[in-house]
Amino acid sequence: MSLIVVGTMAFDAIETPFGKTDKIIGGSATYVAYCASNFIQPIQQVSIVGYDFPNEVLEDLKSRGVQTEGVEIIKDKKSFFWAGKYHLDMNTRDTLVTDLNVLADFNPVIPESYQGAEFLMLGNLVPAIQKSVIQQLKTRPKLIVLDTMNFWMESALEDLKEVLTMVDVLLVNDAEARQLSGELSLVKAAKKILTMGPKYLIIKKGEHGALLFHGDQIFYAPALPLEDVFDPTGAGDTFAGGFIGHLAKTKDISFENMKTAIIVGSAMASYCVEKFGAERLREITREDIDKRLAQFRELVNFDIELV
Amino acid sequence: MSLIVVGTMAFDAIETPFGKTDKIIGGSATYVAYCASNFIQPIQQVSIVGYDFPNEVLEDLKSRGVQTEGVEIIKDKKSFFWAGKYHLDMNTRDTLVTDLNVLADFNPVIPESYQGAEFLMLGNLVPAIQKSVIQQLKTRPKLIVLDTMNFWMESALEDLKEVLTMVDVLLVNDAEARQLSGELSLVKAAKKILTMGPKYLIIKKGEHGALLFHGDQIFYAPALPLEDVFDPTGAGDTFAGGFIGHLAKTKDISFENMKTAIIVGSAMASYCVEKFGAERLREITREDIDKRLAQFRELVNFDIELV
Repeated sequence: MSLIVVGTMAFDAIETPFGKTDKIIGGSATYVAYCASNFIQPIQQVSIVGYDFPNEVLEDLKSRGVQTEGVEIIKDKKSFFWAGKYHLDMNTRDTLVTDLNVLADFNPVIPESYQGAEFLMLGNLVPAIQKSVIQQLKTRPKLIVLDTMNFWMESALEDLKEVLTMVDVLLVNDAEARQLSGELSLVKAAKKILTMGPKYLIIKKGEHGALLFHGDQIFYAPALPLEDVFDPTGAGDTFAGGFIGHLAKTKDISFENMKTAIIVGSAMASYCVEKFGAERLREITREDIDKRLAQFRELVNFDIELV
Repeated sequence: MSLIVVGTMAFDAIETPFGKTDKIIGGSATYVAYCASNFIQPIQQVSIVGYDFPNEVLEDLKSRGVQTEGVEIIKDKKSFFWAGKYHLDMNTRDTLVTDLNVLADFNPVIPESYQGAEFLMLGNLVPAIQKSVIQQLKTRPKLIVLDTMNFWMESALEDLKEVLTMVDVLLVNDAEARQLSGELSLVKAAKKILTMGPKYLIIKKGEHGALLFHGDQIFYAPALPLEDVFDPTGAGDTFAGGFIGHLAKTKDISFENMKTAIIVGSAMASYCVEKFGAERLREITREDIDKRLAQFRELVNFDIELV
């Protein structure tokens, strides 16, 4: 049982109301790998970095069961770099810098050793690259999860629509679900999106939790109410990593198990935002994870028998 | 076991993206009574109406176990009237008309027959009136629930702070919790508000559900994702009616039972918004309520044992 993770490995510089970082390690595939490796190994990483990406991070990931044969290292270019500043409410942010660098040349080739993976996590990327990865796999994975964003709905909608027909689970936020469907009601938006390809749709609502749609079924996962959200960067990718990590671990892709997987994703995301970047994710132990999962159960558990 | 409900009984004219009404029956105490009477009888209503308030509504409420001795009828004045228009997202609205009419003279006298009630629901009103009602009760109710709004935080903060020290449960929305506490984080806001008097705080987040705080404990109740919210008017009062109705029915005011009560309130509110005004609340049966409660269990229920 293995999991292929495709996405960026990069540098971020982040400013929040609580502080400011210089360049720190970021990227969707980095967050997914740090998170999912708590649940499933090996993880087969597909990404691209420049000469400046620290070898110690690659080694750290390897020690967590992350294979890096699919991580291309470009000797004469820099890694992708993003700088952003969060507003006071932490729900919105301004992008200050986007230096594509190596990402401009990203055209991943799936290593032969990765063939046969049963789970595929396609992080937010150009839809054509997401499609190319699916097409390179000789055996279709048991479950393909796709993350995307509003940018591709505006600049590559036809490619995005095509890749949507090839995946099982789509992950978007509430604004993106509305944009993709043209519907204001999230329930109507979900119904429409579920006709576009994916059989499962997860709508992330940040501090308001996440919704899972499948046929006529709906599941509502809360977010843990936190005193402070220190840095939301990577929370969505961490959520995705916990979600697919749990499914791959349990080898069960039923709707019932996806509910649990969303709670796992939410619990991991609640840790991610406690410190800058992936710092907190690198620290937490199995005991921490269990503790937070128990908090989630307390958070939503109620007895309806007495009513 | 009885429940005193204090609040407005009034007329509303409502405009939503789905349609428009002439004057229809509204008022916080009307919604609370229609909702809570599904769970507990008698309900002892305290309100004020004018000559124009339809007797058939009072009779309808009586047939549902609502006592109206505490509803003052002013022969030469009109009932309170509010007109408003909802924006497309249904989360915000503009007030078009506020005619206080009889409400300007509201100075409720609790009938002797209401003394000894064990539950008190204080709908959103001038804090000084809420305080006067509490002071008129010879035996303090087992549970006092208070609803209020931003208007009183701006115009009668000292009175509001005083009445807060006299109640058990405060109901506000997220913006009001932030305003009352001066804290952006709802967790911090709750901690501060819980030092101001109430031992329990419910923060309503509309389509994002509701949070219950008590000491260090938190419960997160979802809202049912709906295809259309037809008319949100009265949803908060209906929520309050379901909450206190369930507590009064079960005679159990523990934190655990409050969780269930919030789910009951959420289920009732999800019915309220399906039609204009209190129309849907007047139609639904015990079977409808059970059906929706089962949907809520499905909505949040997950199995964490396997993780």
